[in-house]
Formats: sequence, structure tokens, C-alpha cells
Amino acid sequence: MKNRILELLKFDRESYISGEEICRILGVSRTAVWKHIQVLRDEGYKILSMPSKGYCLTAIPDRLYPEEIMSGLLTKSLGRDVRYFEIVDSTNNKAKELAGFKGLSHEAGLTAAEGMLVIAEEQTGGRGRLGRSWHAPYGKGIWMSVLLRPQVCLEIVYQMTMITAVAVMRAVREVCGIAPEIKWPNDLQYEGKKLCGILTEMSAEADRVNYIVVGIGINTASAGDLIPPQITHQMTSLSEITGKPVSRVKLVQEVLQELEACYDSWLAGGFPELLEEWKSHCNSLNRQVAVKTLHEVYTGWSMDVNSDGALLLKLDNGEIKKFVSGDVS
Amino acid sequence: MKNRILELLKFDRESYISGEEICRILGVSRTAVWKHIQVLRDEGYKILSMPSKGYCLTAIPDRLYPEEIMSGLLTKSLGRDVRYFEIVDSTNNKAKELAGFKGLSHEAGLTAAEGMLVIAEEQTGGRGRLGRSWHAPYGKGIWMSVLLRPQVCLEIVYQMTMITAVAVMRAVREVCGIAPEIKWPNDLQYEGKKLCGILTEMSAEADRVNYIVVGIGINTASAGDLIPPQITHQMTSLSEITGKPVSRVKLVQEVLQELEACYDSWLAGGFPELLEEWKSHCNSLNRQVAVKTLHEVYTGWSMDVNSDGALLLKLDNGEIKKFVSGDVS
Repeated sequence: MKNRILELLKFDRESYISGEEICRILGVSRTAVWKHIQVLRDEGYKILSMPSKGYCLTAIPDRLYPEEIMSGLLTKSLGRDVRYFEIVDSTNNKAKELAGFKGLSHEAGLTAAEGMLVIAEEQTGGRGRLGRSWHAPYGKGIWMSVLLRPQVCLEIVYQMTMITAVAVMRAVREVCGIAPEIKWPNDLQYEGKKLCGILTEMSAEADRVNYIVVGIGINTASAGDLIPPQITHQMTSLSEITGKPVSRVKLVQEVLQELEACYDSWLAGGFPELLEEWKSHCNSLNRQVAVKTLHEVYTGWSMDVNSDGALLLKLDNGEIKKFVSGDVS
Repeated sequence: MKNRILELLKFDRESYISGEEICRILGVSRTAVWKHIQVLRDEGYKILSMPSKGYCLTAIPDRLYPEEIMSGLLTKSLGRDVRYFEIVDSTNNKAKELAGFKGLSHEAGLTAAEGMLVIAEEQTGGRGRLGRSWHAPYGKGIWMSVLLRPQVCLEIVYQMTMITAVAVMRAVREVCGIAPEIKWPNDLQYEGKKLCGILTEMSAEADRVNYIVVGIGINTASAGDLIPPQITHQMTSLSEITGKPVSRVKLVQEVLQELEACYDSWLAGGFPELLEEWKSHCNSLNRQVAVKTLHEVYTGWSMDVNSDGALLLKLDNGEIKKFVSGDVS
């Protein structure tokens, strides 16, 4: 009921709608309407009320509420079940918890289904690859995880990171009008600074995936208050780049829509095209680079990324070396 | 204290030990000793008591209690943390739950460490590969899962199923004096009937394993009361084969010891030797077989199993086909 009242208020933001009319349309009492309006106000919606005219919505809070994300969302399954949290340790952890331990038990309705979105205003223990920490302060970014249950073998799960990068790149371009670059293996950058990180995790049997959780972190707020000084030079945000605030809700919707399109295409065998799109926006290819692994640093010419997501480096001695993981600079 | 009293009682099973002596050795009161003896009796230990002589342990219950498993266990890490349950849905699920959602948080002491053993008398939702159910009635088998945290890439996780098969095969041979055969991909058989199933599951990032849970189910009890009639012809048990009861505790210890040896060897690069041992006990190789996959059945000559655990089948038309999963008959 609260959401239906919100819809009515949103329908015409310029004018007032009377409490009586809301009652008539939704078939509820004046007291009920008043109570729901109070709840909406507590959630941050600015709602004017005038005795003779009724209610008027003047401002929507900058929050990632499920009703905002689902309002006008053009997807079949992604984001159809939104789990919103103000603060979590990590949206990936929460998504894995909700996905359950049993690979197949979601069929019995016990655990979350494909497409579930976990989203939070803040992560207290945000993670990047290899257990690295990811700074995710309140309201300053999009911290989201999507649950997928594709019937694929383990070897191609890595491709999910790549197609997610393509989806986020497209969404940022569409909503913000800028074109981020993809940095192998799992970041989006703008002019050499990190804008977005992707962390793909999975639960699997030795020869079959139970589920995949794709975690996406996008820095949206201005860098000034977003980033601790010691990492400012490595990080940027959409509002810093564009000079204006970003609608996080709109960007989440666009990411979900693009990700669903890429995911469907991937399942239908469309990875080669997605890989080409990935490569054409990748800033780690066809140049002299250093690749740092856990124990060593290699330098050479970055020739290609193959369909396993591995970077092929032509070392200075002519040898070609394959990396599945590492830091490129 | 309870376990230390049990150790004293076990030290000489033929004679009585006085309550006074127990008090003296362990530095506790007579009342405390008496209370612990009561608890042990409630757990199924048969303890005689005579006013003038003291206590005598006459029977140990057929249970997989941690103190029994750890008593005399010759491992460094496997089974050093035993989580015992009378009844769980699945020991693999429980192990995954205890392993936690966070790949690295065990370092902060929040989640279970490598080697943790989850063991239960009964599984109400035991699982095999591909979500198939696994019959695991109370006390009639060994239903166990071991948590491992190797720093390996995803591609070789499948090998864990294979080296576990080798470890269980060795343990059964040692404890029961029979030599089961390995059926690709993850079963042990005896004269064509299933004796043991292995289910390897993992949590991983796209390019790194967080943890592996190796689930092992071994049918120990006599087939008569173990197996529902409709599957009797496919299943057997150790007591049915040997004609005598099996010490489940001893077998669990042997499995842990062999598994640790195989695991250490695997981490040290010893997979080729383990694969040879696996092959030499495999009954799915060098014969005419049918391989049933999700959608189709292929027939041909089973040539080899490669280091990815894939079965290579020479089809009747001469083509060689690789299977990572399927049912061989």
C-alpha cells in the first residue's frame, strides 16, 4: 500500500492530490493514508501537505530503495527481487548467504532465485579480488551484487567478470555520457583512475556451478569526500568526472538492463562478440606493460586476452606467457 | 575433564580403577568424577561401578564422537577440529556453513580452518553429484566432510575428487582387507555395487579457490537394513562384503590419515603418481562403455582419464570425445 501511495504521488509531481482521492483510488481509510505518508517521510521522501489541497511529493531521497529501483525497470529477472540494506559487511557475502548452501534447494523455494539483487548504502567489509578491501562509504557509490544460476561449467565463469565489465561500461556511457575503459582483469577506469571494480564469486561442485554472485562497486560521489587521501590518486568517481551528481537509481537500473542483455547473449553463445566489445574498450592491450603476480613481476607486450580471460604477454625475451590473474601497470 | 576420565578408563579396559585414584590423578572431587561418569553413560559408554573397586569401561558406543576419532589419530591438520552431529541435513552443507561466506575471514578466526571435519550419524538431505539424493541413515555409514583451503586455481579442483577416491580406497583396503574399485567420476564400487560416493564442492572467486569441501559417504552397515529395496541391487556395504561389523571410528581415522597424505602429496606436485594409482584401480577404463550425459548417451571405448579428470571416449565412429561429467555403464 505504501508503494502504491508513492506511485500516486509520483504520477504528477507538480500538483497536489487530495487524501480523499487517494482513499477512493486505493480503497483505504484516511488514517491509513496518513500513516503511510508518515512512513514515507521517515524514509526521506519530502511530502508537502495542505489541508485543502492534499499531498504533493517534492523530493525523493537519494537512497537505493527497492521501490525506486523496480519503478520502471526493464528487465525480466535481474533485480526483480531486491534485498536492500543500509549497511552490510559486503553485498557479495549477503548474496551468498541468501543463495543458500544447497546448490539446488532454491527449487524448493528455500533460497534466493536467479536475478536477486543485493544492494546497500554502505559496506563495512567491502572486498575486491584476492581478499583486498574495497572502500564503500555510505551513499557514495553503488554497492551491489547479483545472483545468477547459469548451468555452465567452471571454466567459463571467468567470462562473467568480462561481460559484467561490458555491461557496466555501456550503462555508465548511457547514463553519464562518458566512456570508461576496461582494465584487465576486473576494473573500469577513467583516465587511469579506478571507477568500478567487479568481483565474481561462485559456489560449485567440481564439475558444475551451483550459483554465481557478481559483485559490482561503482564510485558515484565526488572524490573529495569519497576517498581516503592515501588512495585519491588511484581512484575517481562519476560526479568528479562529469562535474554533476549522478542518479544512482537510474544507473543501477541501466546496469541491470545491460547486464541482463549481456547475460542472455552469453548464455545463447554470444561470448565472442562480447569479448570483441570488451577488447575494444580495454586499456591493457597492445602496449608495453608490467604484470605483477603474487611472487613476481613480468614485463612485455600485452598481445591479447583469450576467451578464458587470460592475458597473453609477449615477454621481452620473446616467450609468450599466459596470466589468469595479476596486476597490470 | 570428561575426556580425560574416559582416557583413564580406556587405559586398562580389563581392570577397575578406583574413584579415589581418578580424583588423585586429575585433581578433581569425587562428585565431579561421578557426574562425568553419568554423562559418559548417557552417551552410551557402558561403565561398571563397584563400591570397593571403582569403575570399569566395558563397552564403547558405536558412535563417531570427536573424542573417539581424535584418540590415536595420526594427522597434522585433518580432523583436528571435529564437529559432530547426530543428525544434519548434509555434512557438506554444514561444512560450508561453518567455512563462512568470506574467503579470507578464517584468518581473523571467524570461520573454520583447514582440516575441519564435519561428521554425522545421519543425513536427512544427503546429496550426491548434480543434486542427486544420497541415502544416509542413522549409524549405518560414515557421512563426513573435510574442509580444505588450498591456494590452487579452479581448474585442478576436480583432482581433489580423484585423490579422495584414492585415499578412501587405500583406507578401506587397510581397515577391511578388501580392494574396492574406482568408478569414474566419483564412486567406489565393489563387484559392481556402490560402496562410497564423493562430492567435492567449492567456494571460489573467478580465478581463485576460497575453500573446498570434500564430502565422503561410505556405506558400512549390512545391506539388509541399509538400503531401500528399490536400490539394493546397486548398493552394497562393507559389512555385507566382509561379513562382519566395521569399526567406523577406525575407518574414519584411516581415511583422514590417507587423505592427508594424498593431499600433501598433491600440493607438492605429486598428482601424476596419484593419477596412476587412481587409474590402476579404475573399473571404467579400457573397455566398451556407455556414457550418459544430461541429454545424450554415447558408446565407445574408454581410452583414458586425463589430468583434468575428463574421460576420453573413442566413439564407435573413431572420433575421440571428452567427458567432464556423466554416468558410465
